[in-house]
Amino acid sequence: MSEHIITLTTDFGYSSGYVGAMKGVILAIAPRARLVDITHSIPAFNVTEAAFVLRQAIPQFPAGTTHLVVVDPGVGSKQQPVAVSWNGYHLVGPDNGLFALLTGSNQPGAMVVLDRPSTYRADPPSATFHGRDIFAPAAALLATGQPLQSLGSPIGQLLAVPQQLPIVDHQGIHGHIVHIDRFGNCITNIPRSLLVKHFASPKVTCNVGDTNIRDLSRTYSDVPRNEPLLLFSSSDRLEVAVNQGSAAQQLGIKRRMPVSIRRVPQRD
Amino acid sequence: MSEHIITLTTDFGYSSGYVGAMKGVILAIAPRARLVDITHSIPAFNVTEAAFVLRQAIPQFPAGTTHLVVVDPGVGSKQQPVAVSWNGYHLVGPDNGLFALLTGSNQPGAMVVLDRPSTYRADPPSATFHGRDIFAPAAALLATGQPLQSLGSPIGQLLAVPQQLPIVDHQGIHGHIVHIDRFGNCITNIPRSLLVKHFASPKVTCNVGDTNIRDLSRTYSDVPRNEPLLLFSSSDRLEVAVNQGSAAQQLGIKRRMPVSIRRVPQRD
Amino acid sequence: MSEHIITLTTDFGYSSGYVGAMKGVILAIAPRARLVDITHSIPAFNVTEAAFVLRQAIPQFPAGTTHLVVVDPGVGSKQQPVAVSWNGYHLVGPDNGLFALLTGSNQPGAMVVLDRPSTYRADPPSATFHGRDIFAPAAALLATGQPLQSLGSPIGQLLAVPQQLPIVDHQGIHGHIVHIDRFGNCITNIPRSLLVKHFASPKVTCNVGDTNIRDLSRTYSDVPRNEPLLLFSSSDRLEVAVNQGSAAQQLGIKRRMPVSIRRVPQRD
Repeated sequence: MSEHIITLTTDFGYSSGYVGAMKGVILAIAPRARLVDITHSIPAFNVTEAAFVLRQAIPQFPAGTTHLVVVDPGVGSKQQPVAVSWNGYHLVGPDNGLFALLTGSNQPGAMVVLDRPSTYRADPPSATFHGRDIFAPAAALLATGQPLQSLGSPIGQLLAVPQQLPIVDHQGIHGHIVHIDRFGNCITNIPRSLLVKHFASPKVTCNVGDTNIRDLSRTYSDVPRNEPLLLFSSSDRLEVAVNQGSAAQQLGIKRRMPVSIRRVPQRD
Repeated sequence: MSEHIITLTTDFGYSSGYVGAMKGVILAIAPRARLVDITHSIPAFNVTEAAFVLRQAIPQFPAGTTHLVVVDPGVGSKQQPVAVSWNGYHLVGPDNGLFALLTGSNQPGAMVVLDRPSTYRADPPSATFHGRDIFAPAAALLATGQPLQSLGSPIGQLLAVPQQLPIVDHQGIHGHIVHIDRFGNCITNIPRSLLVKHFASPKVTCNVGDTNIRDLSRTYSDVPRNEPLLLFSSSDRLEVAVNQGSAAQQLGIKRRMPVSIRRVPQRD
Repeated sequence: MSEHIITLTTDFGYSSGYVGAMKGVILAIAPRARLVDITHSIPAFNVTEAAFVLRQAIPQFPAGTTHLVVVDPGVGSKQQPVAVSWNGYHLVGPDNGLFALLTGSNQPGAMVVLDRPSTYRADPPSATFHGRDIFAPAAALLATGQPLQSLGSPIGQLLAVPQQLPIVDHQGIHGHIVHIDRFGNCITNIPRSLLVKHFASPKVTCNVGDTNIRDLSRTYSDVPRNEPLLLFSSSDRLEVAVNQGSAAQQLGIKRRMPVSIRRVPQRD
C-alpha cells in the first residue's frame, strides 16, 4: 500500500518525449509510485556533473527511495545496466562510473546487472533507449517491492573512473571549480573537512583566476553587495561567490579553473 | 478511489504561472489526480513538433490516462475545444490538427466539443486562457470518472492538417528531418516499416546535406566516437546520429532538411 | 489521511540539485504530500516577477494548499524566515517583500517567524541554504497538519516594498510593462478595474514605444495574423500582443517600458 518514491535524473533535457516515455513505463508497472524529478538538464553525457548534483539531492530522501539515473555516454555499448543497493536506497542506471563517483566506492552494496529485461518488459529492449526499455521498468519493479536479486545476476564491483582530488602541499590546498550554479556561485572540489584538517585558523587566502579573496565568510551577506567572498557551500565544499551577484560573470570563473587556498602570512 | 493520471503538454514554457494555474484548477476538481508533465517546451504554436513528442511518450502510459495537450496557434479563434476517446486514453485540447496528426485519423474514436464550460467552472471562460478555463477542468472531470459524453456535444470528425509523408520512387525513399533532440540526433519521417518494405537488405546509403552515410547501424557505439551513423530511433524511424557527438552540429543538419535513402549499387 | 498539496516556486533553475534536495526533505517529513512545481525559473532574486507569476497560479489551488516560495536576494542576512496564513493557504519563505506584494497587504493573516528550526530538523540550519534547512521542513510540517503557531513566534507585520502603481491624470492612465511571457505577450501593471473606472467606452488608444494601438480587442484572433492588439490578459491586466507572433520582438518592447492609455479624441 505504501507509495514508493522514484526520483529521475537524466541528460535528456525538457523538450523531448524521452522523460515522458520513462514516466509512462514506470506508472504502467507501478501505478502508485511517486515520481520526483531531480533534473533533466545534466549536460549531455556529463557523469561528473550528474554525481555532483545527486550528492546534493539524494541524501535528503527517505530510505526506500529508488533513484533512476540515466546519463549515458556509451548507450548501446558494452556498458552494463545495473541496480545497486546503497544506504537504504536503490540506484538504477548504466554502470559508467557515475555510481562509483556518487557513492565513493566501487562496492557500495548489493549489485546486479539488469540482464533479464525480458522478464519485466514484453518487448525486447531497443538498442538505443535503455532508459525506457531497461532502467524505467527495473526502477518500477523495485518500487513495487520486488527484490533487487530478482532483476539480474550479481556482480562484484562497479566501474570506477579516475577522479581529480585536491592536492595538499606545503603551500596549501590546490583544487578546482567543479560546478557553477544558476546564480554564478562557483563550487570547488575542496571539502570543509580537508580545510579544517590543514588549517587551524580561518585566516586563509584564496586565489582563483585573477582574484584573491581573504578570509572565510559564513554567508553571502557577510560582505557588501557585489563583493566577492569565500564560504562553505550548502554541501560543505569551498565556494567562491559574490553577494547578490554572479561570481562566474564578475570574476570570469569557469568550470575546471584551478583554486588555491593558502595560509595568510603572519606578517601581513 | 483509483488515482487517474493526467499528463500535461504545452508550449507555455517553464517560467510563467500558466502551467501552475492549470495544475491548481485540476487539483481543485480532482484532488487525487496524478499530474505528470510531458513537456512545456514545445516551440510556440508548433503542432507538428507536439505530435512528434507525444508519439514517443503517450503509448507508454497505462490505459485510462488523460492527456491534456494545449498547443494552440489560434487561441480565441473559431477552433473548437475537444475531448477525444482513443486507444483507452482521453485526449483534451484544441482541435487544431494535432490530435489527427497524433492518432493518424480524423475519426480516432468518440469525440465531443467542449461546449458546456459553465457546467464545470463557475466563472465564464476567459477569451485568452482556454488551458485554465476549459481544458484543465474538462481533463479533471474525465479523471474523476465523468463520462466524455457529459462534457459536450458529439462531433463527427477532427480537423486534419496536411502531413508531408516520405516519397518512394525508383531511386529510393525521400523524406526529411522532423526532429532534432538535445543530443543533436536527427530523426526523419521515414519509418522502419517503409524501409523494410522497399529494401530487402540493409545495404543502403543515406544522403543528408553534404553527408553520405553507408549502411545501417544497430546502435551509437557501432561506429567509432565522433563518426556519423544511420540507425533506427527508439520510435522506429530512421535517425542520423554521431556517436557521443551532435549530428546536427557536426554535419550541419537542420529541421526540414531532405534525406534520401538509396540502394548501394552492386558494383561498389 | 488527506494528501496536502505543497507548491514550489524558486529562482534555483532546473539544473542544480537544490530543488531536489528540498523535495527530499519534504517527503522525508510528509511522505504523503503532493508536490507541484509552479516554476523554478524566476529570474535570480526577482521578487516582483515571482509575485506576478504567483498571482496567476496560486488562486487556482484548493484551500489548504501550502505554497513554498524561495526567491531570496538576502539569504543569510537579517531577513526573517516566515510562515503566513492567507486566504485558506499557507505561504512559507523569506520575508523580503514578496508576500506583501503577493497578498497586497503587510498583515494578510496569522504570521510567525520560523525561529525554531531545531525542533523540526536534527541538524542546525546551514548559513546558505534556508530552502532546504528551514523552509522545506516548515512547509512539510504544515502539510502534515501541524498548526502554524507551533512553528515559531508570532509577528505583527510583513516587510513591505514600495510598488510602482499606474498613475492616472487628465490625459489617461500611465503604467509600464511588468512581464513578457514566452510568446512575447507584454503584460502591464494596469488592471481591468482601473480602465473600467476611468473610461466609459472601450475606444482607447495605447502608446508603447513607437507603437500606437487603437481599440481593445477581446482575443488574439480578433486581428489579422501578425497584427498588434490590446486586450485583457487572463489575469485581467492590459496586455499588448501580436496575433500568432511576438509583440516583444516585433514591437521592440522590453520590461519596465512605459505604456499610456488615452481616450480616442472625438474628432478622429
